[in-house]
Amino acid sequence: MARIAIDMDGVMADTTQQFIDYYAKKYGVEVNRETLNGQPEASGFPHDKEIIRSFLFEPGFFRTKVVIKDSQEIIKALCEKHEVFIVSAAIEFPTSLNEKLEWLEEHYPFISWQNIVFCGSKTIVQADYMIDDHVKNLQHFKGEAIMFTAPHNINVTGYKRVDTWQEVGALLL
Amino acid sequence: MARIAIDMDGVMADTTQQFIDYYAKKYGVEVNRETLNGQPEASGFPHDKEIIRSFLFEPGFFRTKVVIKDSQEIIKALCEKHEVFIVSAAIEFPTSLNEKLEWLEEHYPFISWQNIVFCGSKTIVQADYMIDDHVKNLQHFKGEAIMFTAPHNINVTGYKRVDTWQEVGALLL
Repeated sequence: MARIAIDMDGVMADTTQQFIDYYAKKYGVEVNRETLNGQPEASGFPHDKEIIRSFLFEPGFFRTKVVIKDSQEIIKALCEKHEVFIVSAAIEFPTSLNEKLEWLEEHYPFISWQNIVFCGSKTIVQADYMIDDHVKNLQHFKGEAIMFTAPHNINVTGYKRVDTWQEVGALLL
Repeated sequence: MARIAIDMDGVMADTTQQFIDYYAKKYGVEVNRETLNGQPEASGFPHDKEIIRSFLFEPGFFRTKVVIKDSQEIIKALCEKHEVFIVSAAIEFPTSLNEKLEWLEEHYPFISWQNIVFCGSKTIVQADYMIDDHVKNLQHFKGEAIMFTAPHNINVTGYKRVDTWQEVGALLL
Protein backbone atom coordinates (compact mmCIF):
# COMPACT_ATOMS: atom_id res chain seq x y z
CA MET A 1 0.00 0.00 0.00
CA ALA A 2 1.39 3.37 -1.02
CA ARG A 3 0.32 6.87 -0.06
CA ILE A 4 -0.75 8.88 -3.11
CA ALA A 5 -1.29 12.65 -3.06
CA ILE A 6 -3.62 13.76 -5.85
CA ASP A 7 -4.05 17.36 -6.95
CA MET A 8 -7.53 18.67 -7.82
CA ASP A 9 -7.25 21.46 -10.40
CA GLY A 10 -5.99 20.20 -13.74
CA VAL A 11 -5.85 16.61 -12.49
CA MET A 12 -9.35 15.77 -11.20
CA ALA A 13 -11.10 18.96 -12.36
CA ASP A 14 -10.74 20.30 -15.89
CA THR A 15 -9.57 23.81 -15.05
CA THR A 16 -8.52 24.55 -18.63
CA GLN A 17 -12.04 23.81 -19.88
CA GLN A 18 -13.50 26.00 -17.13
CA PHE A 19 -11.31 28.92 -18.24
CA ILE A 20 -12.40 28.33 -21.85
CA ASP A 21 -16.07 28.12 -20.88
CA TYR A 22 -15.96 31.22 -18.66
CA TYR A 23 -14.16 33.11 -21.40
CA ALA A 24 -16.71 32.07 -24.01
CA LYS A 25 -19.58 33.09 -21.73
CA LYS A 26 -18.08 36.52 -21.03
CA TYR A 27 -16.49 37.44 -24.33
CA GLY A 28 -18.37 35.32 -26.84
CA VAL A 29 -15.21 33.66 -28.16
CA GLU A 30 -14.63 29.92 -27.89
CA VAL A 31 -10.85 29.54 -27.56
CA ASN A 32 -9.45 26.37 -29.10
CA ARG A 33 -7.86 24.23 -26.41
CA GLU A 34 -4.84 23.42 -28.58
CA THR A 35 -3.88 27.10 -28.88
CA LEU A 36 -3.20 27.09 -25.12
CA ASN A 37 -0.51 24.41 -25.43
CA GLY A 38 2.80 25.50 -23.96
CA GLN A 39 1.43 28.75 -22.53
CA PRO A 40 1.53 29.47 -18.80
CA GLU A 41 -1.80 28.66 -17.10
CA ALA A 42 -4.46 31.31 -17.84
CA SER A 43 -2.36 32.68 -20.71
CA GLY A 44 -3.00 32.25 -24.43
CA PHE A 45 -6.44 33.89 -24.39
CA PRO A 46 -7.14 37.08 -26.37
CA HIS A 47 -7.33 38.92 -23.01
CA ASP A 48 -4.50 39.29 -20.49
CA LYS A 49 -3.68 36.60 -17.97
CA GLU A 50 -4.88 38.83 -15.10
CA ILE A 51 -8.38 38.96 -16.60
CA ILE A 52 -8.46 35.18 -16.98
CA ARG A 53 -7.08 34.64 -13.45
CA SER A 54 -9.83 36.87 -12.04
CA PHE A 55 -12.29 34.08 -12.93
CA LEU A 56 -10.69 32.10 -10.07
CA PHE A 57 -12.19 34.52 -7.57
CA GLU A 58 -15.74 34.35 -8.95
CA PRO A 59 -18.29 32.38 -6.93
CA GLY A 60 -19.07 29.12 -8.71
CA PHE A 61 -15.81 28.74 -10.61
CA PHE A 62 -14.55 25.84 -8.49
CA ARG A 63 -18.01 24.39 -7.86
CA THR A 64 -18.97 23.75 -11.49
CA LYS A 65 -15.83 22.33 -13.08
CA VAL A 66 -16.10 19.30 -15.29
CA VAL A 67 -14.58 16.09 -13.93
CA ILE A 68 -11.60 14.82 -15.91
CA LYS A 69 -12.40 11.60 -17.78
CA ASP A 70 -12.03 8.34 -15.84
CA SER A 71 -10.79 10.09 -12.68
CA GLN A 72 -13.76 8.94 -10.61
CA GLU A 73 -13.43 5.24 -11.41
CA ILE A 74 -9.64 5.16 -11.15
CA ILE A 75 -9.46 7.16 -7.90
CA LYS A 76 -12.14 4.92 -6.39
CA ALA A 77 -10.04 1.88 -7.28
CA LEU A 78 -6.89 3.58 -5.96
CA CYS A 79 -8.68 4.23 -2.64
CA GLU A 80 -9.35 0.52 -2.29
CA LYS A 81 -5.73 -0.43 -2.81
CA HIS A 82 -3.77 2.56 -1.51
CA GLU A 83 -3.95 5.45 0.92
CA VAL A 84 -5.20 8.36 -1.18
CA PHE A 85 -5.05 12.02 -0.14
CA ILE A 86 -6.57 14.81 -2.19
CA VAL A 87 -4.13 17.72 -1.85
CA SER A 88 -5.23 21.06 -3.23
CA ALA A 89 -3.46 24.42 -2.97
CA ALA A 90 -6.80 26.01 -2.13
CA ILE A 91 -5.89 28.46 0.63
CA GLU A 92 -4.99 31.16 -1.93
CA PHE A 93 -8.66 31.27 -2.94
CA PRO A 94 -10.79 31.42 0.23
CA THR A 95 -14.07 31.28 -1.69
CA SER A 96 -12.92 28.01 -3.22
CA LEU A 97 -12.73 26.09 0.06
CA ASN A 98 -16.38 25.21 0.49
CA GLU A 99 -16.93 24.92 -3.26
CA LYS A 100 -14.14 22.38 -3.46
CA LEU A 101 -15.54 20.37 -0.55
CA GLU A 102 -18.99 20.32 -2.17
CA TRP A 103 -17.52 19.42 -5.55
CA LEU A 104 -15.59 16.51 -4.04
CA GLU A 105 -18.68 15.33 -2.15
CA GLU A 106 -20.74 15.42 -5.36
CA HIS A 107 -18.28 13.70 -7.69
CA TYR A 108 -16.10 11.60 -5.36
CA PRO A 109 -18.40 10.74 -2.42
CA PHE A 110 -16.13 7.84 -1.44
CA ILE A 111 -13.36 10.23 -0.31
CA SER A 112 -13.40 10.83 3.45
CA TRP A 113 -12.87 14.29 4.97
CA GLN A 114 -9.88 12.73 6.72
CA ASN A 115 -8.13 12.38 3.36
CA ILE A 116 -8.58 15.93 2.11
CA VAL A 117 -5.82 18.54 2.45
CA PHE A 118 -6.19 22.21 1.53
CA CYS A 119 -2.84 23.92 1.67
CA GLY A 120 -0.72 26.68 0.29
CA SER A 121 2.73 25.31 -0.34
CA LYS A 122 2.75 21.53 -0.91
CA THR A 123 6.28 21.14 0.46
CA ILE A 124 4.80 19.90 3.74
CA VAL A 125 3.15 16.88 2.10
CA GLN A 126 4.68 13.48 2.74
CA ALA A 127 3.64 10.71 0.37
CA ASP A 128 5.02 8.04 -1.94
CA TYR A 129 3.50 9.51 -5.10
CA MET A 130 2.28 12.96 -6.02
CA ILE A 131 0.13 13.42 -9.12
CA ASP A 132 0.05 17.09 -10.08
CA ASP A 133 0.10 19.32 -13.15
CA HIS A 134 2.40 22.03 -11.73
CA VAL A 135 6.19 21.97 -11.55
CA LYS A 136 6.08 24.23 -8.46
CA ASN A 137 4.29 21.45 -6.58
CA LEU A 138 6.27 18.52 -7.94
CA GLN A 139 9.78 19.95 -7.81
CA HIS A 140 10.30 19.74 -4.04
CA PHE A 141 8.50 16.44 -3.61
CA LYS A 142 10.65 13.69 -2.13
CA GLY A 143 8.57 10.75 -3.35
CA GLU A 144 7.85 9.85 -6.97
CA ALA A 145 6.50 12.85 -8.85
CA ILE A 146 3.99 12.20 -11.64
CA MET A 147 3.09 15.05 -13.96
CA PHE A 148 -0.48 15.00 -15.23
CA THR A 149 -0.55 16.54 -18.67
CA ALA A 150 -2.23 19.91 -19.03
CA PRO A 151 -1.83 22.49 -21.81
CA HIS A 152 0.43 24.67 -19.64
CA ASN A 153 2.92 21.85 -18.87
CA ILE A 154 3.01 20.15 -22.25
CA ASN A 155 6.62 21.17 -22.97
CA VAL A 156 7.96 20.44 -19.47
CA THR A 157 10.49 17.63 -19.34
CA GLY A 158 12.19 15.74 -16.54
CA TYR A 159 9.10 14.18 -14.97
CA LYS A 160 7.31 10.90 -15.35
CA ARG A 161 4.24 11.99 -17.28
CA VAL A 162 0.71 10.65 -17.61
CA ASP A 163 -1.81 11.93 -20.15
CA THR A 164 -4.91 10.17 -18.86
CA TRP A 165 -6.35 8.54 -15.75
CA GLN A 166 -6.17 5.20 -17.55
CA GLU A 167 -2.39 5.65 -17.54
CA VAL A 168 -2.46 6.41 -13.80
CA GLY A 169 -4.43 3.21 -13.30
CA ALA A 170 -1.93 1.19 -15.32
CA LEU A 171 0.86 2.62 -13.19
CA LEU A 172 -0.62 2.30 -9.70
CA LEU A 173 -3.35 -0.36 -9.77
CA MET B 1 16.09 26.39 10.33
CA ALA B 2 13.51 23.79 11.26
CA ARG B 3 10.02 23.21 9.94
CA ILE B 4 7.43 23.54 12.71
CA ALA B 5 3.80 22.46 12.34
CA ILE B 6 1.53 24.29 14.77
CA ASP B 7 -2.03 23.26 15.56
CA MET B 8 -4.73 25.93 15.94
CA ASP B 9 -7.43 24.69 18.33
CA GLY B 10 -6.14 24.31 21.86
CA VAL B 11 -2.69 25.61 20.89
CA MET B 12 -3.23 29.03 19.30
CA ALA B 13 -6.96 29.36 20.03
CA ASP B 14 -8.42 28.72 23.47
CA THR B 15 -11.02 26.13 22.52
CA THR B 16 -11.65 25.12 26.13
CA GLN B 17 -12.57 28.71 27.04
CA GLN B 18 -14.85 28.91 24.00
CA PHE B 19 -16.72 25.78 25.15
CA ILE B 20 -17.03 27.27 28.64
CA ASP B 21 -18.25 30.63 27.28
CA TYR B 22 -20.75 29.07 24.86
CA TYR B 23 -22.04 26.84 27.65
CA ALA B 24 -22.42 29.78 30.02
CA LYS B 25 -24.29 31.78 27.40
CA LYS B 26 -26.68 28.93 26.61
CA TYR B 27 -27.24 27.34 30.00
CA GLY B 28 -26.35 30.11 32.44
CA VAL B 29 -23.70 28.03 34.20
CA GLU B 30 -20.05 29.05 34.27
CA VAL B 31 -18.13 25.78 34.40
CA ASN B 32 -14.85 25.96 36.29
CA ARG B 33 -11.96 25.21 33.93
CA GLU B 34 -10.24 22.97 36.48
CA THR B 35 -13.19 20.58 36.63
CA LEU B 36 -12.49 19.69 32.99
CA ASN B 37 -9.01 18.42 33.77
CA GLY B 38 -8.45 14.87 32.62
CA GLN B 39 -11.80 14.63 30.82
CA PRO B 40 -12.00 13.98 27.06
CA GLU B 41 -12.45 17.20 25.09
CA ALA B 42 -16.04 18.55 25.33
CA SER B 43 -16.72 16.28 28.34
CA GLY B 44 -17.00 17.32 31.98
CA PHE B 45 -19.90 19.72 31.45
CA PRO B 46 -23.30 19.17 33.11
CA HIS B 47 -24.67 18.33 29.63
CA ASP B 48 -23.56 15.44 27.41
CA LYS B 49 -20.51 15.65 25.20
CA GLU B 50 -22.71 15.59 22.07
CA ILE B 51 -24.42 18.82 23.14
CA ILE B 52 -21.07 20.50 23.78
CA ARG B 53 -19.64 19.23 20.49
CA SER B 54 -22.62 20.66 18.61
CA PHE B 55 -21.20 24.12 19.41
CA LEU B 56 -18.45 23.32 16.90
CA PHE B 57 -20.98 23.48 14.07
CA GLU B 58 -22.44 26.86 15.06
CA PRO B 59 -21.47 29.85 12.90
CA GLY B 60 -19.04 32.04 14.81
CA PHE B 61 -17.56 29.39 17.09
CA PHE B 62 -14.20 29.31 15.33
CA ARG B 63 -14.21 33.02 14.43
CA THR B 64 -14.45 34.39 17.95
CA LYS B 65 -12.05 32.26 19.97
CA VAL B 66 -9.66 33.94 22.36
CA VAL B 67 -5.98 33.81 21.40
CA ILE B 68 -3.82 31.80 23.79
CA LYS B 69 -1.44 34.01 25.77
CA ASP B 70 1.89 34.90 24.11
CA SER B 71 1.15 32.82 21.00
CA GLN B 72 1.20 35.85 18.69
CA GLU B 73 4.61 37.15 19.78
CA ILE B 74 6.26 33.75 19.95
CA ILE B 75 4.88 32.52 16.60
CA LYS B 76 5.98 35.78 14.97
CA ALA B 77 9.49 35.20 16.30
CA LEU B 78 9.39 31.55 15.22
CA CYS B 79 8.42 32.65 11.69
CA GLU B 80 11.56 34.79 11.52
CA LYS B 81 13.83 31.94 12.53
CA HIS B 82 12.08 28.83 11.23
CA GLU B 83 9.66 27.59 8.59
CA VAL B 84 6.29 27.65 10.33
CA PHE B 85 3.15 25.91 9.07
CA ILE B 86 -0.23 26.26 10.73
CA VAL B 87 -1.83 22.82 10.47
CA SER B 88 -5.45 22.50 11.48
CA ALA B 89 -7.74 19.48 11.19
CA ALA B 90 -10.46 21.78 9.87
CA ILE B 91 -11.99 19.73 7.05
CA GLU B 92 -14.34 17.96 9.50
CA PHE B 93 -16.07 21.31 10.09
CA PRO B 94 -16.74 22.96 6.71
CA THR B 95 -18.17 26.12 8.27
CA SER B 96 -14.91 26.56 10.15
CA LEU B 97 -12.73 26.95 7.04
CA ASN B 98 -13.37 30.60 6.27
CA GLU B 99 -13.76 31.48 9.95
CA LYS B 100 -10.33 30.03 10.63
CA LEU B 101 -8.76 31.94 7.74
CA GLU B 102 -10.32 35.20 8.95
CA TRP B 103 -9.28 34.48 12.53
CA LEU B 104 -5.68 33.86 11.45
CA GLU B 105 -5.66 37.02 9.33
CA GLU B 106 -6.95 39.05 12.28
CA HIS B 107 -4.64 37.73 14.97
CA TYR B 108 -1.58 36.48 13.05
CA PRO B 109 -1.43 38.71 9.94
CA PHE B 110 2.23 37.81 9.42
CA ILE B 111 1.33 34.22 8.45
CA SER B 112 1.19 33.72 4.67
CA TRP B 113 -1.55 31.68 2.98
CA GLN B 114 1.28 29.50 1.69
CA ASN B 115 1.93 28.30 5.24
CA ILE B 116 -1.59 27.29 6.17
CA VAL B 117 -2.79 23.69 5.97
CA PHE B 118 -6.36 22.55 6.58
CA CYS B 119 -6.51 18.80 6.68
CA GLY B 120 -8.31 15.82 8.09
CA SER B 121 -5.71 13.32 9.21
CA LYS B 122 -2.36 14.91 10.04
CA THR B 123 -0.41 11.78 9.09
CA ILE B 124 0.47 13.40 5.76
CA VAL B 125 2.36 16.28 7.42
CA GLN B 126 6.12 16.26 7.20
CA ALA B 127 7.97 18.55 9.62
CA ASP B 128 10.68 18.58 12.25
CA TYR B 129 8.38 19.59 15.12
CA MET B 130 4.65 19.30 15.66
CA ILE B 131 3.01 21.28 18.45
CA ASP B 132 -0.44 19.87 19.13
CA ASP B 133 -2.79 19.12 22.03
CA HIS B 134 -4.14 15.82 20.68
CA VAL B 135 -2.52 12.39 20.94
CA LYS B 136 -4.27 11.33 17.70
CA ASN B 137 -2.28 13.96 15.83
CA LEU B 138 1.05 13.50 17.61
CA GLN B 139 1.20 9.71 17.76
CA HIS B 140 2.01 9.05 14.09
CA PHE B 141 4.31 12.06 13.72
CA LYS B 142 7.85 11.13 12.69
CA GLY B 143 9.53 14.35 13.87
CA GLU B 144 9.65 15.63 17.44
CA ALA B 145 6.17 15.74 18.94
CA ILE B 146 5.43 18.48 21.47
CA MET B 147 2.22 18.27 23.47
CA PHE B 148 0.67 21.62 24.31
CA THR B 149 -1.13 21.28 27.62
CA ALA B 150 -4.93 21.40 27.54
CA PRO B 151 -7.39 20.16 30.18
CA HIS B 152 -8.20 17.04 28.11
CA ASN B 153 -4.54 15.92 27.83
CA ILE B 154 -3.34 16.79 31.30
CA ASN B 155 -2.86 13.15 32.34
CA VAL B 156 -1.28 11.98 29.09
CA THR B 157 2.33 10.87 29.44
CA GLY B 158 5.05 9.92 26.98
CA TYR B 159 5.37 13.27 25.19
CA LYS B 160 7.56 16.29 25.60
CA ARG B 161 5.12 18.77 27.10
CA VAL B 162 4.82 22.54 27.12
CA ASP B 163 2.35 24.45 29.28
CA THR B 164 2.81 27.91 27.76
CA TRP B 165 4.05 29.68 24.64
CA GLN B 166 6.94 31.04 26.69
CA GLU B 167 8.08 27.43 27.06
CA VAL B 168 7.78 26.92 23.29
CA GLY B 169 9.93 30.00 22.81
CA ALA B 170 12.56 28.72 25.23
CA LEU B 171 12.64 25.44 23.32
CA LEU B 172 12.70 26.68 19.72
CA LEU B 173 13.99 30.26 19.66
